[in-house]
Amino acid sequence: MSQPSTATARTRVVREADRAVYDRKLVYRILDEGFICHVGFNVEGQPFVIPTSYGRSGDQLYLHGSAASRMLRNLDSGIAVCVTVTLLDGLVLARSIFNHSMNYRSVVILGTATAVSDPEEKLAALRALSEHILPGRWAESRQPNEKELKATMALRLPIEEFSAKVRQGPVVDDADDYSFRTWAGVIPLPVVPGAPLRDERCDPGIPVPGYVTGYSRRREKSF
Amino acid sequence: MSQPSTATARTRVVREADRAVYDRKLVYRILDEGFICHVGFNVEGQPFVIPTSYGRSGDQLYLHGSAASRMLRNLDSGIAVCVTVTLLDGLVLARSIFNHSMNYRSVVILGTATAVSDPEEKLAALRALSEHILPGRWAESRQPNEKELKATMALRLPIEEFSAKVRQGPVVDDADDYSFRTWAGVIPLPVVPGAPLRDERCDPGIPVPGYVTGYSRRREKSF
Repeated sequence: MSQPSTATARTRVVREADRAVYDRKLVYRILDEGFICHVGFNVEGQPFVIPTSYGRSGDQLYLHGSAASRMLRNLDSGIAVCVTVTLLDGLVLARSIFNHSMNYRSVVILGTATAVSDPEEKLAALRALSEHILPGRWAESRQPNEKELKATMALRLPIEEFSAKVRQGPVVDDADDYSFRTWAGVIPLPVVPGAPLRDERCDPGIPVPGYVTGYSRRREKSF
Repeated sequence: MSQPSTATARTRVVREADRAVYDRKLVYRILDEGFICHVGFNVEGQPFVIPTSYGRSGDQLYLHGSAASRMLRNLDSGIAVCVTVTLLDGLVLARSIFNHSMNYRSVVILGTATAVSDPEEKLAALRALSEHILPGRWAESRQPNEKELKATMALRLPIEEFSAKVRQGPVVDDADDYSFRTWAGVIPLPVVPGAPLRDERCDPGIPVPGYVTGYSRRREKSF
């Protein structure tokens, strides 16, 4: 594992600096709980922000998609990107409107994404992405063939320049407001996996795998 | 309500065009269910993507934050932005790795955000934002004072150039793969509000409001 990053002028959290996190281990915990990121890139001066899935493997973030996609073709050409991952944890209802807030954890990574061209590394990257989202699924799926691999692009973004911002915990009101008579507290907003929906054409004799019935984002990879 | 938008070259969905939605009413339904967006903007050629809350009122999207924030100061100067809202609905487990997917609904809005300077409109914007996130809460909170209003910036982004992308429903596998013996189906991933956590300093005699106990993002504003 690399040394924890020192924030650069670009990633230093300016507002509510007490919420800033630059520790790599904490940042990875956020990245590992999430699997949807928002990728920012420019096309002729216009910023675009596109949601996509990702996987982390060591100090690399992997993205993937169709080799024909506008986003990935642009990322591959070596332009600057910003990848942001946000986990929302709850609404914080203060007594004053002004102190209303949210509990969340977010990571911002700046860098340049490059295409993974080596076929073996590409397969490894896609596997890492799949394992990140749903550990155990890759091995039980029909493996990608030559044509599918050709149609898929994998990109590698080194996790080098990053920061995180975290707000957790209870309401914080101004001293004078605690006597204001209104309900105050937190509404937790967890993502709770629902009962799995078996595909109509899936033989009922095939049991639901443990990685489906026990699906959870809480995890702790070894770093 | 305005006429449905026609996609521009910049917002036309290129990949999986069958998932594209340009209808304003459907787009607003997505915007109204969400309340966290990812705002993309450039600072000296570097894209930044920052998560923040938003509210919709008519054909305007409102953002807010500290008047001192790097993001809002940059948005106010009239640079191009991209605001993306993503709702994740579930994981789609196909038989082939290649056909694994996600159910989601996302909206991309391009435009220029401008600061709301008129004090009355600013208060209305902040109220709209609050009502968007938690209808009923504004009226029961301690109202913002002069100092708080001064410290808060509100921005208006007209919803003019936009598109949405939606994937819902069951697994779609290649014909040859249906005989592959693995579990296939969907894992729904809804956000399920947890039991509200009363603030330690909140008098137990104050009942939990209905907008807290019945909190849900499913809603249908009149347009």
